[in-house]
Amino acid sequence: MTKKRTTKYKKHVGQIPGTLVYTGDKTSKLFIESFDYNTNYVEEKEIKHIEDVAHYKLTDSVSWININGLNNINEIEKIGDHYGLHPLILEDIVNTSQRPKIDEYEGYLFIVVKMLYYDKDDLIVSEQVSFVLGSNYVLSFQEADGDVFDSVRDRIRAKKGRIRNLGPDYLLYALIDSVVDHYYEIIETMGNKIEELEDHLFGGNPKEEITAEIQSLKREVLRVRKAIFPLREIINRIEKIEHKLIHKKTIHFFRDIYDHIVQVSENIDIYREMIWGLMDMYMTTISNKMNEVMKVLTIIATIFIPLTFIAGIYGMNFNNMPELQYKYSYFILWGIMLILFIGMLFYFKRKKWL
Amino acid sequence: MTKKRTTKYKKHVGQIPGTLVYTGDKTSKLFIESFDYNTNYVEEKEIKHIEDVAHYKLTDSVSWININGLNNINEIEKIGDHYGLHPLILEDIVNTSQRPKIDEYEGYLFIVVKMLYYDKDDLIVSEQVSFVLGSNYVLSFQEADGDVFDSVRDRIRAKKGRIRNLGPDYLLYALIDSVVDHYYEIIETMGNKIEELEDHLFGGNPKEEITAEIQSLKREVLRVRKAIFPLREIINRIEKIEHKLIHKKTIHFFRDIYDHIVQVSENIDIYREMIWGLMDMYMTTISNKMNEVMKVLTIIATIFIPLTFIAGIYGMNFNNMPELQYKYSYFILWGIMLILFIGMLFYFKRKKWL
Amino acid sequence: MTKKRTTKYKKHVGQIPGTLVYTGDKTSKLFIESFDYNTNYVEEKEIKHIEDVAHYKLTDSVSWININGLNNINEIEKIGDHYGLHPLILEDIVNTSQRPKIDEYEGYLFIVVKMLYYDKDDLIVSEQVSFVLGSNYVLSFQEADGDVFDSVRDRIRAKKGRIRNLGPDYLLYALIDSVVDHYYEIIETMGNKIEELEDHLFGGNPKEEITAEIQSLKREVLRVRKAIFPLREIINRIEKIEHKLIHKKTIHFFRDIYDHIVQVSENIDIYREMIWGLMDMYMTTISNKMNEVMKVLTIIATIFIPLTFIAGIYGMNFNNMPELQYKYSYFILWGIMLILFIGMLFYFKRKKWL
Amino acid sequence: MTKKRTTKYKKHVGQIPGTLVYTGDKTSKLFIESFDYNTNYVEEKEIKHIEDVAHYKLTDSVSWININGLNNINEIEKIGDHYGLHPLILEDIVNTSQRPKIDEYEGYLFIVVKMLYYDKDDLIVSEQVSFVLGSNYVLSFQEADGDVFDSVRDRIRAKKGRIRNLGPDYLLYALIDSVVDHYYEIIETMGNKIEELEDHLFGGNPKEEITAEIQSLKREVLRVRKAIFPLREIINRIEKIEHKLIHKKTIHFFRDIYDHIVQVSENIDIYREMIWGLMDMYMTTISNKMNEVMKVLTIIATIFIPLTFIAGIYGMNFNNMPELQYKYSYFILWGIMLILFIGMLFYFKRKKWL
Amino acid sequence: MTKKRTTKYKKHVGQIPGTLVYTGDKTSKLFIESFDYNTNYVEEKEIKHIEDVAHYKLTDSVSWININGLNNINEIEKIGDHYGLHPLILEDIVNTSQRPKIDEYEGYLFIVVKMLYYDKDDLIVSEQVSFVLGSNYVLSFQEADGDVFDSVRDRIRAKKGRIRNLGPDYLLYALIDSVVDHYYEIIETMGNKIEELEDHLFGGNPKEEITAEIQSLKREVLRVRKAIFPLREIINRIEKIEHKLIHKKTIHFFRDIYDHIVQVSENIDIYREMIWGLMDMYMTTISNKMNEVMKVLTIIATIFIPLTFIAGIYGMNFNNMPELQYKYSYFILWGIMLILFIGMLFYFKRKKWL
Repeated sequence: MTKKRTTKYKKHVGQIPGTLVYTGDKTSKLFIESFDYNTNYVEEKEIKHIEDVAHYKLTDSVSWININGLNNINEIEKIGDHYGLHPLILEDIVNTSQRPKIDEYEGYLFIVVKMLYYDKDDLIVSEQVSFVLGSNYVLSFQEADGDVFDSVRDRIRAKKGRIRNLGPDYLLYALIDSVVDHYYEIIETMGNKIEELEDHLFGGNPKEEITAEIQSLKREVLRVRKAIFPLREIINRIEKIEHKLIHKKTIHFFRDIYDHIVQVSENIDIYREMIWGLMDMYMTTISNKMNEVMKVLTIIATIFIPLTFIAGIYGMNFNNMPELQYKYSYFILWGIMLILFIGMLFYFKRKKWL
Repeated sequence: MTKKRTTKYKKHVGQIPGTLVYTGDKTSKLFIESFDYNTNYVEEKEIKHIEDVAHYKLTDSVSWININGLNNINEIEKIGDHYGLHPLILEDIVNTSQRPKIDEYEGYLFIVVKMLYYDKDDLIVSEQVSFVLGSNYVLSFQEADGDVFDSVRDRIRAKKGRIRNLGPDYLLYALIDSVVDHYYEIIETMGNKIEELEDHLFGGNPKEEITAEIQSLKREVLRVRKAIFPLREIINRIEKIEHKLIHKKTIHFFRDIYDHIVQVSENIDIYREMIWGLMDMYMTTISNKMNEVMKVLTIIATIFIPLTFIAGIYGMNFNNMPELQYKYSYFILWGIMLILFIGMLFYFKRKKWL
Repeated sequence: MTKKRTTKYKKHVGQIPGTLVYTGDKTSKLFIESFDYNTNYVEEKEIKHIEDVAHYKLTDSVSWININGLNNINEIEKIGDHYGLHPLILEDIVNTSQRPKIDEYEGYLFIVVKMLYYDKDDLIVSEQVSFVLGSNYVLSFQEADGDVFDSVRDRIRAKKGRIRNLGPDYLLYALIDSVVDHYYEIIETMGNKIEELEDHLFGGNPKEEITAEIQSLKREVLRVRKAIFPLREIINRIEKIEHKLIHKKTIHFFRDIYDHIVQVSENIDIYREMIWGLMDMYMTTISNKMNEVMKVLTIIATIFIPLTFIAGIYGMNFNNMPELQYKYSYFILWGIMLILFIGMLFYFKRKKWL
Repeated sequence: MTKKRTTKYKKHVGQIPGTLVYTGDKTSKLFIESFDYNTNYVEEKEIKHIEDVAHYKLTDSVSWININGLNNINEIEKIGDHYGLHPLILEDIVNTSQRPKIDEYEGYLFIVVKMLYYDKDDLIVSEQVSFVLGSNYVLSFQEADGDVFDSVRDRIRAKKGRIRNLGPDYLLYALIDSVVDHYYEIIETMGNKIEELEDHLFGGNPKEEITAEIQSLKREVLRVRKAIFPLREIINRIEKIEHKLIHKKTIHFFRDIYDHIVQVSENIDIYREMIWGLMDMYMTTISNKMNEVMKVLTIIATIFIPLTFIAGIYGMNFNNMPELQYKYSYFILWGIMLILFIGMLFYFKRKKWL
Repeated sequence: MTKKRTTKYKKHVGQIPGTLVYTGDKTSKLFIESFDYNTNYVEEKEIKHIEDVAHYKLTDSVSWININGLNNINEIEKIGDHYGLHPLILEDIVNTSQRPKIDEYEGYLFIVVKMLYYDKDDLIVSEQVSFVLGSNYVLSFQEADGDVFDSVRDRIRAKKGRIRNLGPDYLLYALIDSVVDHYYEIIETMGNKIEELEDHLFGGNPKEEITAEIQSLKREVLRVRKAIFPLREIINRIEKIEHKLIHKKTIHFFRDIYDHIVQVSENIDIYREMIWGLMDMYMTTISNKMNEVMKVLTIIATIFIPLTFIAGIYGMNFNNMPELQYKYSYFILWGIMLILFIGMLFYFKRKKWL
């Protein structure tokens, strides 16, 4: 089951462009963490005073400022001021019903992606993550605590992989890559759901609620599709614009993400076709069951209605019914009925109804 | 339910190109309001004499002339003359069955969009709004009173946002943005309708009229699609043509509208698939109900037809039927029938029909 | 109902390219009318002698030669000679199974469009009209008498609109515009047909022939689509090729036709989806009716089969059936049956089958 | 019915590229005919010795060498050597499961098309024809005797049309045109088949095998589509590449073929949709028939089951059943039954079941 | 039946980019074979020591190093080091859930394709094969032993075809060609499966499991599609990029592969439509069977229920039933019943139910 569409769009209507309005569901305390590193050095700390954020704009080292809690509008605005972000960008960051997109500005690149995961009720949650890539920093904005970036943190801390030797564009790549990696889990879970539904349908006695489940799975697939498909275009754009913040060496890595997204997208489209097929399968299952019911009825009725008729005949009260007088009539009649009965059974056998 | 297609096209056939014919349904008194402003100054008034309109073509300040009541053909024509509009444009303004479009002319830009809202009967109303963007003015033409521009008026009056500091291209953006913002409400309402239909279908006992409602919802989605989809191309064009009336700084804002339209369009396409699915769901619901009816019939018939046959046997009038004479025959027969009855029940239980 | 496909293609096979073979159904006497005009002057006459046609190639004024009756192959060929038309063009003019198209030649432009209308049997008739645009003339070729150009004739005669002040390219525009205007009537009629079918289906008791009507409407939509869609490309081409015979000023008018065709095309595609939906609706209607039939059967059978069984029991002839002797047995049995009967009714009531 | 897919692909697997392997079904004696002509002169003869083929490469006149019997691998290879054809071309010529295609080489153009016709069992046969266009010759390779080129032969012999005055590129056009012309016959026949199926379905009592016929027609349409669609791209390419062997004057003629192919393709796509619709129609027909069957059952059962119950009542053997003694009971009962019977009939009449 | 999707993606999530993780199912001992050849010379041997691999990077002759057993991560990494391969390439080589792709690097070209075959359980197995094309070598990486390259080996050994005379780009072509050739077998087998299912369906008594088989076949087609379609783009790219490692002469051969892939793809798309049609056919088959069942029931019930009613009438015990006394009543009644019976049969005959 997917979450029901909430009325988050409503807040948007009639609002002045450039006004910051948080449209998400989750609220949390503002939590800012920073990583500042180069090949030889790494500093990780929690930023308590919003003014300290500005500091990292000046360092030579690569800085990653991760901001959680988009409901804290004022603080977000201050950060935006410190880094000179365009008002439309700030608006997009806090409007969590944004479509994944990329916007190029003088001096920085703005990217919105969707982090997808199943929550504990098995509902797909789509959380918006925005990135700002500057010459020596990456800002990331998340709706609330809890993310998929732990492996990136570990690599920075432990100097694993090449992350410590490369610039903020590689960091951006690593972060987006983490998000895309988690799409595979969504794909995984969906695939399992479809297989479960198939198995249930093949089991031959599907419950009626399955149509609701299929319709809900359709909705889920369509929503995930909407969240993932625009990413292709975004990564493609990163490759093509030759933005000075993206080094040529890093392009190969983005190309790798692109391949992953295409793969995920292809799977989603396959799932879509499979799900549409499920409805047909359910339909045939119902029809098969109806067929079975009808066969039982037909067999019983076809055998016993004629026999009952015969019995009815000899229950008539005519004065002159010669057969009634004959001594063995009754037994002969039983014989005839038995023959009829067996004949019918053979007939149904031959028709493969039994 | 959507409004039935009226015969508005008819008026068009055989007409001389360039002739003004109003093809809308609504008629209203001509009502013209004007906003004239710059950063420090704002003047808002109702224009009573059609000649006063020409005045705003000359001012240095930004002017917004909002004309309501397209059925007043002559007055519209005069305004067109004052602003030097091409006859085809005037024709398009009053022909309200126009497709959303953009036309570039020397000295001005002409844009047609569709304002969508649900009226009090829950029918989607599509009202045509045309904009003419000149070097220092925006003309807007509406079929009748009542629109979605109140937030723009407030911002101009109150100097909220950046509207008072920027040119007519930003004003145009603000107006189109208001129109697009209202599409979200349409999306909202449609989403709710689909969910209601789904709930009704899942309830298990859908009424027959639901097919009419589904078909009508399909029609609604297709109509909204038709009104919204061309806008993508229009905004895209605004970005690409680099018209001298659209400043580079404003492009970012139009890009924002573009994102919104794409988002609305994606939702519409998802709704479309969901609605198509509803018909399948209804079909399976009917089949399920039929299955249930058939099961009741089969159970009753399968149990009682054989028993009736047995009773028929012992209602026959043969002279020689030994069982009839035996004292406990009747009670034994009851026993046999009872066993048969229970056996049948078990059989159906095992088949999961009970 | 659409007309059945005739075997018009047959005549084409194995024919030498460049040979003139008329493939239409209609035959009529050759009828040629000419309009020769400029701003101050207009001459309208019927041309009796085929040689007089050549005269208009030389005049300074704008000439429109309208030729009806394509079955007069020889005359058509002579006209072609007078105006120096390529043999392939002549072949296309008389081969009325042509696809709408545009061909550019040195000195003239060749355009084929389809005139669509409903004949008196409510069948869609598609008549081919070919235009040749030269530097000072427009030739139009029609299969037979009767066309949609009366409004153009009136405008030329009455000096209405701008037609008398502009060149042959505007005349071409006016003629094509007349053809496209009539597409709206087709759209209109189709829309009405679909609504009628819908109303008939919603009426709940559709007749069986409706599938034939739906299939036939599908075929109609597909045929109209085939006739109209290529026009988009044609008009687009006119805009793009910058042919010296099409003046820049006229391009805006062709753009207007383009908008109309797109609008018509969009409607056709919507109709297509609606018609596909009709079949589903019919299917559910049938299923609903079947459900109703089955319910009646099940109710009657479920009530009376058990009662008949009871009656059967007391029709048995066992010697020892104590109940038979008891004085009020019969009346008690009636009571039991009545209770059973009412119980059943309640049961069906609760199941919403009554 | 289409021919069943044979296992012709098998031979291809694991074969060395450039090896000649004939993959067709038909075998025939090698038969080579040659036409050598210019405006004033024509020579037609059968070539018996494979070496004579080389002769025509040198003449000034236009030569058409038509080779039948692709199973004669060695001879084909020799011809290829004489004309200096690339090994891949020779491989494609004899591999008859080729897709229609065009390949440009230094000094010649290679084109593969599919000749389609219905054989005597009403199966579509697809025969591959390959053309090599050189500076003064056209080679054509066919699987076996019998083709669609007789009209071209006649025109060469009789100096009809412009064929004798133009070069080998026009000859190539004429040959391809003959192939495309025959597609119209396929279209014709398919259209008739669809109409027959429709008529059969509308007849109301379709036989079960019709699903097999529909599925087979689907397969046929898809196969024809596969054979025809690539031709569009091929002709398009001929127009665009501006190959020095194709003269500008001939382009117009190829454009004509293009129009024909588009027209054929559009028809095929319409047929496709119609055929898909047939399955739905069949489905509704079955459902309608089922409805009718169920109505008959329901009417009979609903009328007679209650009556039988009443008769059963008075067949009971209770001692005390007052009605039995009354003199006119029997006749009154008949009256009641008659009233019930007529009432039922009215009920069904009102329900429109009768 | 296709193999169930395994959870191979899981291993990928949260992994450092550039880390080698083998994601395939098969494990096998590392097996490396090398072919080193030029026109006059060929050397074939198994490489036991991983260091010997480096040797072939330096030779003048063409070398093909075929590495089997991707689970031997360390060895793969060493080979990568010897040949200077980018870490991302090594990661892609061992991540067997890769999408077919091409990556251009300085000095070499990297291509991933999918080898498809049916295993002994009739499941489609998709094995990843990666190629690295250098200036004088081709590296091929396979998951495990057993491949489709035997014909290439034979040609190298036996100096068959042109392989020994051409460079490594031709070798690459030959290897990819072998892979694509085997797609025809997949196509073959699928085609046969579809025909079997069709025959089974046309047989009239399909078993219920057929829906599972159809759904599984759908899945198979979609998977094969996913494996094959990207190849088109890859080969296209090879033609377009004009990489210095691909000689102009070899392009023609790649074009040939392209044609094959398009052909395979077209077949797959046709199969897809056919399979979708199968489900409809199954549905109609079920409905037909239901119809037949219902007819039997209706015929029996319609004949015998009225007759039973008549018998019931004369089983009533009214004192005054004149018919009962008349001597020939019984026989007359038999006559009447017989007439009714025969009349019914005629009725059903006329309705074509018998």
